[in-house]
Amino acid sequence: MSTQTVALDIMGGDFGPSETVPAAVQALSLLPQLKLILVGDQHQTSSLLQQHGLLNHSRVRFVHASQVVGMGDNPIIALRTLKDSSMRIALDLVKSGDADACVSAGNTGALMAMAKCVLKALPGIDRPALIKALPTLNGQRTVMLDLGANVNCDAKELLQFAVMGSVVAQTVEGVTAPRVALLNVGAEDNRGNKLVRHSADLLRQCQALNFVGFIEGDHLFSGECDVIVCDGFVGNVALKTAEGVVRMMAALAGYPRKKRSFLGFIAEIMFKRRFLYLNPDQYNGASLLGLRGIVVKSHGRAERRALYNAILLAAQEAKHQLPLQIADRLEAVFSDRDR
Amino acid sequence: MSTQTVALDIMGGDFGPSETVPAAVQALSLLPQLKLILVGDQHQTSSLLQQHGLLNHSRVRFVHASQVVGMGDNPIIALRTLKDSSMRIALDLVKSGDADACVSAGNTGALMAMAKCVLKALPGIDRPALIKALPTLNGQRTVMLDLGANVNCDAKELLQFAVMGSVVAQTVEGVTAPRVALLNVGAEDNRGNKLVRHSADLLRQCQALNFVGFIEGDHLFSGECDVIVCDGFVGNVALKTAEGVVRMMAALAGYPRKKRSFLGFIAEIMFKRRFLYLNPDQYNGASLLGLRGIVVKSHGRAERRALYNAILLAAQEAKHQLPLQIADRLEAVFSDRDR
Repeated sequence: MSTQTVALDIMGGDFGPSETVPAAVQALSLLPQLKLILVGDQHQTSSLLQQHGLLNHSRVRFVHASQVVGMGDNPIIALRTLKDSSMRIALDLVKSGDADACVSAGNTGALMAMAKCVLKALPGIDRPALIKALPTLNGQRTVMLDLGANVNCDAKELLQFAVMGSVVAQTVEGVTAPRVALLNVGAEDNRGNKLVRHSADLLRQCQALNFVGFIEGDHLFSGECDVIVCDGFVGNVALKTAEGVVRMMAALAGYPRKKRSFLGFIAEIMFKRRFLYLNPDQYNGASLLGLRGIVVKSHGRAERRALYNAILLAAQEAKHQLPLQIADRLEAVFSDRDR
Repeated sequence: MSTQTVALDIMGGDFGPSETVPAAVQALSLLPQLKLILVGDQHQTSSLLQQHGLLNHSRVRFVHASQVVGMGDNPIIALRTLKDSSMRIALDLVKSGDADACVSAGNTGALMAMAKCVLKALPGIDRPALIKALPTLNGQRTVMLDLGANVNCDAKELLQFAVMGSVVAQTVEGVTAPRVALLNVGAEDNRGNKLVRHSADLLRQCQALNFVGFIEGDHLFSGECDVIVCDGFVGNVALKTAEGVVRMMAALAGYPRKKRSFLGFIAEIMFKRRFLYLNPDQYNGASLLGLRGIVVKSHGRAERRALYNAILLAAQEAKHQLPLQIADRLEAVFSDRDR
């Protein structure tokens, strides 16, 4: 049985060790092939680690980090000055080969800046992209990228995103010939802004992709395609809008305590059970694709269960050696185009 | 009591006269100050109009149109060849002053092309924008623009959108000093793409606006601002994403008939009552702002109740003489900048 070693930044996220440590315990118990390298401040966390039985765990190693990246820190300054931070050391462990992947719930901008600097982009990739698997109405999952790593994109980058997304859909999600769609304001060929129309031309010409055309915002969760490609500005707004609506409806479903009736209580429980799979926590974990190593970003607000999902995702990507698969596919696409 | 005359394209939309005519009946009954000019094919609709008592109604006039714009028609071809269509005649009636506003549920692209050609843009407006009022968690409404009229925008256009949106929030929604926000991928000043950052500079400099900074996708319905400004590509994707999630959750709340239990039935009713105000039908009707006349676009799938809301919106905008108010405000903004 192959094992996967994941470096976990236990200081990251809004809740820090109080959530990351229990998430580590859950991951170790549910994933027998997982080894963890916990990276954090020894003084702050040792009693918590002991309490959770992680200090002498056979599949756990601890690495001390004297610094922590703050959620509000400037990414560029963090990159320059926080070289002994838990986030940076987790990335260094991937670079050195000690870990197969790393997970952090810390400052997104800092993680992206450090990851690009430490791990470097794969050949053929101009800029790494954030990707996430979304649940769909038919019970499948659709991967979507970019979700905010690049807010100014050109068509060539969207083509690279399409290739990377296809590899994820194929290897991690197990889809044969993933259907790739471009997010647009209409489904007809003549719709869209300059970027989308130019990108559609490139995607159509790429033999290695199964490009199925445009998809609109109200079809994101329909399951009619396997990969949704967009620039990071649009992707970030769309994903946050969807998550915002789900959270708002979940909040509205919770009846005010004082007015709670029996039927209201039943309705609330039925509502929550029914929409559980749409809960953003269920699909926590966005991967930064296009690097020479695996980096999974958990939501900053993530609690233990959501953090567990991010660790699981990192382990899956490590098992499938995702960066190698992406590099191979990119090489095939570009040699095909150069022929 | 002032009256408002609205020209209604009764042929438009996925359902045509079978929904537009009952919507007209409802509007006449609920809005005593409303007069309607129904524009459509006499042969196709006369029996339906008679059946609904509209042929000799004191507040109804009928205008025959020999052509209809199809939902799939090319806007430019429709503009050139369908000059006797119900959509075009409704716009002509606004231009001639016979109607104070018009409403159509027909082909969006054709309506925008015809409206721009017939009614012309106000001085100071480069391109008209689609605006809509969204419901918020605190029971207020937030207007958002552009929702798809312009998929390639520059910062100057976003400034014009901000001014127009402020006028709508003030006059139609009754907000004093409306808070204007730019839709972005983060709330911090250094976030966003080139367009958003440049637009933020312009909005900050504009004394006539109450610019409150950036807003993210998950805060669209929070009620923390009164006007949300974005380019038409992003706005269209965000709005459709939100509507798609609401419709998906409403569909999921409907239990399959065969498995319906008593409690499931109660939960479904409570769910639907609770989320009724989020139903896109409740806020049907997007206005094409920045023209020398009032044009309200109803959703193509709208049924009578949703169509009624679009007619109501057109009447409200007519009552407030929205184009005049926008022209005045634009003049003030530009004279202020030129000083």
